[in-house]
Amino acid sequence: MKKIYLDHIATTPVHPEALEAMLPYFNEHFGNPLSIYEPGLKAREAIENARVQTASLINAKAKEIIFTSSGAEANNLAIKGVALANQGRGKHIIVSKIEHHSVLNSARFLEKSGFAVTYLSVDKNGLINPEVVTKAITKETILISIIHASPEIGTIEPSAEIGEIAKQNGIIFHMDAVASVGNIPVDVRSLNVDLLTFAAHQFYGPKGAGALFMKEGTRIVPLIYGGIQEGGRRAGTENVPAIVGMGKAAEIAKRDLQKRINHIKPLRDKLISSTLKMEKVFLSGHPEQRLPGHASFIAEYIEGEAMLLMLAAKGIYAASGSACSSKALKSSPVLISIGIPAHLAQGSVVFTLGERTTKEHINYVNKVFPQIISRLREISPYSKGWEGMEDPTCTVKK
Amino acid sequence: MKKIYLDHIATTPVHPEALEAMLPYFNEHFGNPLSIYEPGLKAREAIENARVQTASLINAKAKEIIFTSSGAEANNLAIKGVALANQGRGKHIIVSKIEHHSVLNSARFLEKSGFAVTYLSVDKNGLINPEVVTKAITKETILISIIHASPEIGTIEPSAEIGEIAKQNGIIFHMDAVASVGNIPVDVRSLNVDLLTFAAHQFYGPKGAGALFMKEGTRIVPLIYGGIQEGGRRAGTENVPAIVGMGKAAEIAKRDLQKRINHIKPLRDKLISSTLKMEKVFLSGHPEQRLPGHASFIAEYIEGEAMLLMLAAKGIYAASGSACSSKALKSSPVLISIGIPAHLAQGSVVFTLGERTTKEHINYVNKVFPQIISRLREISPYSKGWEGMEDPTCTVKK
Repeated sequence: MKKIYLDHIATTPVHPEALEAMLPYFNEHFGNPLSIYEPGLKAREAIENARVQTASLINAKAKEIIFTSSGAEANNLAIKGVALANQGRGKHIIVSKIEHHSVLNSARFLEKSGFAVTYLSVDKNGLINPEVVTKAITKETILISIIHASPEIGTIEPSAEIGEIAKQNGIIFHMDAVASVGNIPVDVRSLNVDLLTFAAHQFYGPKGAGALFMKEGTRIVPLIYGGIQEGGRRAGTENVPAIVGMGKAAEIAKRDLQKRINHIKPLRDKLISSTLKMEKVFLSGHPEQRLPGHASFIAEYIEGEAMLLMLAAKGIYAASGSACSSKALKSSPVLISIGIPAHLAQGSVVFTLGERTTKEHINYVNKVFPQIISRLREISPYSKGWEGMEDPTCTVKK
Repeated sequence: MKKIYLDHIATTPVHPEALEAMLPYFNEHFGNPLSIYEPGLKAREAIENARVQTASLINAKAKEIIFTSSGAEANNLAIKGVALANQGRGKHIIVSKIEHHSVLNSARFLEKSGFAVTYLSVDKNGLINPEVVTKAITKETILISIIHASPEIGTIEPSAEIGEIAKQNGIIFHMDAVASVGNIPVDVRSLNVDLLTFAAHQFYGPKGAGALFMKEGTRIVPLIYGGIQEGGRRAGTENVPAIVGMGKAAEIAKRDLQKRINHIKPLRDKLISSTLKMEKVFLSGHPEQRLPGHASFIAEYIEGEAMLLMLAAKGIYAASGSACSSKALKSSPVLISIGIPAHLAQGSVVFTLGERTTKEHINYVNKVFPQIISRLREISPYSKGWEGMEDPTCTVKK
């Protein structure tokens, strides 16, 4: 059976060069980077080299990179850490309604701790209007956190404009760029960003390695206290192999970025144009301003779980939106935010292409996917409408 | 040149079997464990298998294991998470003065948030008297956190007795067992413990994988918010290869535990008896109740950094105490806590043996180490005393 992986937004395989770079650090240069003898020094040098590579991908300085264990950890560090460190200046933060759960749930934690949080709405394409950001700012606002690109609908936000607004108002600006870094050009300087979250496993680096870019002079309270690792901002013995892998993957991503985009974008466009020929199937997210490998659809009268399972049975691995949605199989808050009714959000499917995706893969999907939709509509009790069906919502803890 | 690694308490190399188990999860079974198709299901199965293996090492149930990225993260989750979740019952916690910085600095964070913290003293061998624990308990006490074994002086605490005291008083008991799990038998049931921190890289598993044992029914606030991973208690895409490596290393540690102890303890005893023949060199920590591979000494009139560097120049990789001390090269709060004056604490050296340590290694150390001590004393301006020298203290952020 064919195996066509089209869920690169959930995670990517580790690039062979990145894995090769990691291997010596498991049991050859395995020393603790804080120690002063050779096996430790080799590990420390490797971390600092990876820091340079990782910083370079987003046009940052090496010392502005804090390595974490994941994007979720970096988001928690940014949101909670900045809020706690700067609460003397005010206790209001602004986020969008389409943030990742690691941002939303950190914001909710802060609400319980006495902070006020404004959750900004988005338009039908998932775009945040910069004017809406301006209007939400109060004298108490210390932090604006807006996702760079949505993993569920692919939309890329006008982040540089929002960053400019934050800058003019003296407010710290954080961007969750997990879905974008390594997939489109990301430059922290032109984006006017103070903090930026990204994760290696989104660009062919290993799981277990994320990073928070933090502009010099930004104040933060650590999430993980302990030793002096990461300049005292993130304790714990460093995951040396994963950090080395992240650095190498960042170097490769920088080198191959345009090549990757040139490869996947036409394939993605082919998938979109073919899929939209089906009846009652529409694109979710922005039609142009979206991640180059990202194709997300809503198929009416379709039950999402069945669609994913039938695709998987044909060797096509796709998602229904966020990782939450995939497992919980409930409708996504992001889709609700762009105005898609819960019963339609059930029919969500997201294909995300990668560097190994081929024309043959997409041709196969374009052949098989309409057959699956047809078959599901034949057997669906809802094919004539959704009356009487409950509106399920995402059950993730809030 | 010989390369004799005697700093297993700082970190260990990854066991070849553990590394082999990890490899397929980098780019074969690389799927996101939350996804519902085959590459994700394989990853999820691997995590749950690792959870069973990891739980088994400490006689816990699989569902009582929360995977984290490090021991430091697990300690932060335990201390801050339990305090925040249970503050309605009281706002007093008890820790010892010889805890790891990840516990001490978490406790200090709680002090700033309105909690009261009692820091318990230890005796000259580093032991905590259970009666002192009992006396420190107030009606407000919700958490006692005591290290199981000290990485700096090797002393193993009377943890089961302390656990019993906590239990009788209805107080949650957490144990930082990073230095002990995988090196001596650890049974969460007989230790009467509610939470227990451990880390894979201490027992030939990979860096980037730690765990918190949490007894069923214990209430905790997450440190990292986000998705539904780890039952909603620790968000972030799972570091699948590292978790798999931790599981395999735990399985091996359980299998080989007694064999490893039987191998390293006589070698360690040989190192201690030989080293103590030197003048003005004494053992730190408890003479018997200590980790089997742990030999820690104070050499009077010796400057620690020079000692470590001269050992390293002879291919012997040792530490001066905590990782903090190794890099910061300042005197250790643990040594100060057991009554060693700061000027003597400078002469601390810690050798920790591992499964690859041989009789030849120890013979070599026993030959070389006295030569280094003699040489350093010849050139030391302090060889007749320490008058006029400043008392340095550890500069780690508190």
